[in-house]
Amino acid sequence: MKKFLDDADTLLEHSLRGFALAHADLVQLHRAPTFVARRARKPQGHVAVISGGGSGHEPLHIGYVGQGMLDAACPGQVFTAPTPDQMLAAAQAVEAGAGVLFIVKNYSGDTMNFQMASDMLAIQHMTVLVNDDVAVENSTHTSGRRGVAGTVIVEKVVGAAAEAGIDLAGCKRLGDRTNACTASMGVAFSSCTVPAAGVPTFEIGAGEIEMGVGIHGEPGRRRELIKPASVIVDEVLDAVLSDLSPPPGQSLLLLVNGLGGTPLMELYLLLQLAVQRLAREGFQVDRVRVGNLTTALEMAGASLTLTMLDDELRALWDAPARTAAFAA
Amino acid sequence: MKKFLDDADTLLEHSLRGFALAHADLVQLHRAPTFVARRARKPQGHVAVISGGGSGHEPLHIGYVGQGMLDAACPGQVFTAPTPDQMLAAAQAVEAGAGVLFIVKNYSGDTMNFQMASDMLAIQHMTVLVNDDVAVENSTHTSGRRGVAGTVIVEKVVGAAAEAGIDLAGCKRLGDRTNACTASMGVAFSSCTVPAAGVPTFEIGAGEIEMGVGIHGEPGRRRELIKPASVIVDEVLDAVLSDLSPPPGQSLLLLVNGLGGTPLMELYLLLQLAVQRLAREGFQVDRVRVGNLTTALEMAGASLTLTMLDDELRALWDAPARTAAFAA
Repeated sequence: MKKFLDDADTLLEHSLRGFALAHADLVQLHRAPTFVARRARKPQGHVAVISGGGSGHEPLHIGYVGQGMLDAACPGQVFTAPTPDQMLAAAQAVEAGAGVLFIVKNYSGDTMNFQMASDMLAIQHMTVLVNDDVAVENSTHTSGRRGVAGTVIVEKVVGAAAEAGIDLAGCKRLGDRTNACTASMGVAFSSCTVPAAGVPTFEIGAGEIEMGVGIHGEPGRRRELIKPASVIVDEVLDAVLSDLSPPPGQSLLLLVNGLGGTPLMELYLLLQLAVQRLAREGFQVDRVRVGNLTTALEMAGASLTLTMLDDELRALWDAPARTAAFAA
Repeated sequence: MKKFLDDADTLLEHSLRGFALAHADLVQLHRAPTFVARRARKPQGHVAVISGGGSGHEPLHIGYVGQGMLDAACPGQVFTAPTPDQMLAAAQAVEAGAGVLFIVKNYSGDTMNFQMASDMLAIQHMTVLVNDDVAVENSTHTSGRRGVAGTVIVEKVVGAAAEAGIDLAGCKRLGDRTNACTASMGVAFSSCTVPAAGVPTFEIGAGEIEMGVGIHGEPGRRRELIKPASVIVDEVLDAVLSDLSPPPGQSLLLLVNGLGGTPLMELYLLLQLAVQRLAREGFQVDRVRVGNLTTALEMAGASLTLTMLDDELRALWDAPARTAAFAA
């Protein structure tokens, strides 16, 4: 295993301290239990938006804490759900009199622990479950579809809604609606190595690509021989478009997400290919975003996400945000 | 070779088109010859700041075109210097009546071609040469020290100075001064693969680390067995501090740069370790920045950069910037 590491047991703690140092103007790190909260709290009467999940997907979720997105994020150990006490403490710390909205990626560990936190939480709260990954119906850690990079879009839209003073039920409705019009699929050239495990999560041949990979290295739809980027983009978009069935002329948000080990240059190539294809089919690609937004440690690969936009979602996507990893 | 790629010959062109699509609010892509220019031009009477170099180091330099940093960037093919006609065309397009400052990383191909452009350019101009890499004195593609991630700091400081209306000689002086108080060193766990070559630039054993690696995979100081992150940070900082010799209590900017294939979680660990060490020695780490800022394609590794700050440099570092990859 080749990593910058002293001790897998303390990696998360030291990394979070580094994160808090680097972004001290935006966030505060709370310990025992661990969560990252916005430094500048929302005024009373606004919904608090909280997410969380295993670490190793950075900048998700800690990098999205700040104005216009999350009020707090609860990081678990690498690829491991956070515990209910983290979510409870975060909710109590950042609630501002208008309830708490949890944004949860659909993995069994996450949904179970967020449910336990919900059961114990006296503050009014609701949950948005994100399951944008069209690759497979059930998976290693999931009953139903997985939540992947579309989570960033849900966090942005709901965070903007909460910032604008929309109430808890309204934020929940927007989150569910954003999730329903968002679909993603990813592919991988390489595995990733969980520090505490020390060996790659899966093996993949020198000439192979995993189509539909999950963000923990879970299997996708099929293992194939590597093909040209334009063919990969077409197959991923086939899957995503077939799920969403956007009408002709539909306004779309396209997110090109690197899984960690793929150079920006290749991500911009994917963007160009995806925009060309979508334009050929008569869709309006009105918004795009490129980068390592939801990663799987150092995995080489990428995912494409589409969200069908209307005026309301577009305005919330465009609303100001100021976080470590997302500015608008 | 595992890459998102249709054709190595057209990768740069399509990738640049994707970049221009993704950041159409900030930049314009010019073709034949190729350069990326700010969409919102500076008012007349301001110095135009231009950089360039081989592609594969993204977001350097194209990601730093915009308000408060570069007026234009000239991308060459992967790890290949841009041509003089690119620099000439960029200079003619973005000059605003107060001359042009070229920021050039010290590699033989870049310095030669920027010199040729200088010789042909009728507009008043000066050049800042960046050579912040303390790892080795001469290298594969370099006479003298290499220019690496410190380039981002020079681009930020000089860009802010030009935006503030400082004249050409003043911008040149600030650029040289920033370079003189900046030092960097990088390490690599893996090589990278230039798409047109198709094979890794160098071989490295499963348990090995290259101390002092260059951003094209050039050899560093020595090849060693992997060691704990805290030991790596200490050795890199030893080299950087020994070059800069900052006085006790010196105000520092710390940049933790990922070379492309290293997860953010590890970069934040490096930051925490570096800040601890610098604080122990009584330095003031007043500014920090973390991310993939100057990459070597998908290389796993990182570099640390320190700049000795005074009030003037700190204010220029803090000044507003709005580019694809850097906001302040």
